[in-house]
Amino acid sequence: MADSLRDLLRTPAAPVKLSELDPRATPMAPGQKERTREVMIAEGQRLAELQERLYAEGVTGGRRRVLLVLQGMDTSGKGGVVRHVVGSVQPQGVQYTAFKKPTPEELRHSFLWRVRRAVPGPGLIGVFDRSHYEDVLIGRVRELATPQVIERRYREIVRFEQQLADEGVTIVKCFLHLSPWEQKERLLARLDDSAKRWKFNPGDIDERELWPAYRRAYETVLERTDRDTAPWYAVPADRKWYRNWAVGRLLLETLTDLDPRLPEPTYDVAEQRDRLIEEHPIS
Amino acid sequence: MADSLRDLLRTPAAPVKLSELDPRATPMAPGQKERTREVMIAEGQRLAELQERLYAEGVTGGRRRVLLVLQGMDTSGKGGVVRHVVGSVQPQGVQYTAFKKPTPEELRHSFLWRVRRAVPGPGLIGVFDRSHYEDVLIGRVRELATPQVIERRYREIVRFEQQLADEGVTIVKCFLHLSPWEQKERLLARLDDSAKRWKFNPGDIDERELWPAYRRAYETVLERTDRDTAPWYAVPADRKWYRNWAVGRLLLETLTDLDPRLPEPTYDVAEQRDRLIEEHPIS
Repeated sequence: MADSLRDLLRTPAAPVKLSELDPRATPMAPGQKERTREVMIAEGQRLAELQERLYAEGVTGGRRRVLLVLQGMDTSGKGGVVRHVVGSVQPQGVQYTAFKKPTPEELRHSFLWRVRRAVPGPGLIGVFDRSHYEDVLIGRVRELATPQVIERRYREIVRFEQQLADEGVTIVKCFLHLSPWEQKERLLARLDDSAKRWKFNPGDIDERELWPAYRRAYETVLERTDRDTAPWYAVPADRKWYRNWAVGRLLLETLTDLDPRLPEPTYDVAEQRDRLIEEHPIS
Repeated sequence: MADSLRDLLRTPAAPVKLSELDPRATPMAPGQKERTREVMIAEGQRLAELQERLYAEGVTGGRRRVLLVLQGMDTSGKGGVVRHVVGSVQPQGVQYTAFKKPTPEELRHSFLWRVRRAVPGPGLIGVFDRSHYEDVLIGRVRELATPQVIERRYREIVRFEQQLADEGVTIVKCFLHLSPWEQKERLLARLDDSAKRWKFNPGDIDERELWPAYRRAYETVLERTDRDTAPWYAVPADRKWYRNWAVGRLLLETLTDLDPRLPEPTYDVAEQRDRLIEEHPIS
């Protein structure tokens, strides 16, 4: 498979200017909304097949796994991606973790402590809905740590992700790039739909005032923590159908590259077949 | 919703005789294979809606959750149920745990230790693919513990599940009731399909020789650990389409009974709407 979506969406060279990336763009989309959704279903089936092979590898001693990191402003669609993309593979093959505000216990440890505990096991696709990057995003914007500590965290993150890569974890980091105008629409939609009101809280509007600070914090993350072994993709996220397709496609390209193979049986197939057919009857 | 499938499949009174329960039966099925699959899709959507409400309850302080325990002989379809039934709800709302052969660390603790750690959080549907029941199934059949210890475990399990129920966990335990003839077919199918051979191991045939002992162990489990707060359902499992529909339906009846409600907003909707519309422009 051509590597092209990964190439296209890979973080641009520093200095990263998010204002120059169009959140409504649809690079390499197979078509408009309907056509893209059809392609997404077919690609989801291929993803599921590859995931099953990766899982089989893991069951039989393989160490490889995939870690999908999802970051983005509120309403950018991390949940939607999980539902539509991750939902296309078997639940057994997925290890999903939502990182919320740290608990008192988590705060007693290094910021990477809870993250290490959530690293997917062999054969699995791990999904981080938010992640250790919150500690250099809200951590920086809300000044939850000193600039020196934030500075150190970028280096710790890079080292941590390199360790993961060395252990067989293929990392795919997606920044869901949303415009503030689209976010406003989505927040209004939450307020206007009684079934969605529970997802809204007034603090979401306060956070919007810090939008430029968050944008700078994301730019720094992309500049400082993008590596070939832990690449960042900036996924235009104003159009949900494109965002979902694109993240699925990034995963599909990644799994296709990994090319997991079904393990060869360690037993004689014909012999086991005979055993089964000739066994004593069970009553 | 009528409670009928739960009533129909609920464990019969002791002494339980599994040989008298037909594994090919299809009680209350909406029709044959195709029709039942159609109904299952519609019921899956209702299940997903109810699950989202339960999740919303959990996010806003509710304590309720559901725990689906899946037990059954190899190839009885625990994985298939997870894929087809659990796959119909949002991955975020599911906490899936497969209990494999205990690790050395797990063996240093009580048999319930690893199980307690996997109990779903508020708002979630937990799924146990195998469970603490293995410790009174293979534990008994393979004599991994003395009869006295096994005896004590039944009581510990009942007490543990009652604690869970007191904490807001609604427990649904499904025994996937497979015939040895159908298992033979499925094992042969695994051997004959190169994409499935990795799922087979020769030990599966050795276990078949112990089938009558496993049946007795399951009968004892059903007799000793069925409670109104932690009921066992014996789900005929020789027909995959029936098994999948039935487990989904048991969950749907259970969630319908729980009747989770979307929380009321704790803020003034109109006021927040105005705030959002009148905010300073973001650039």
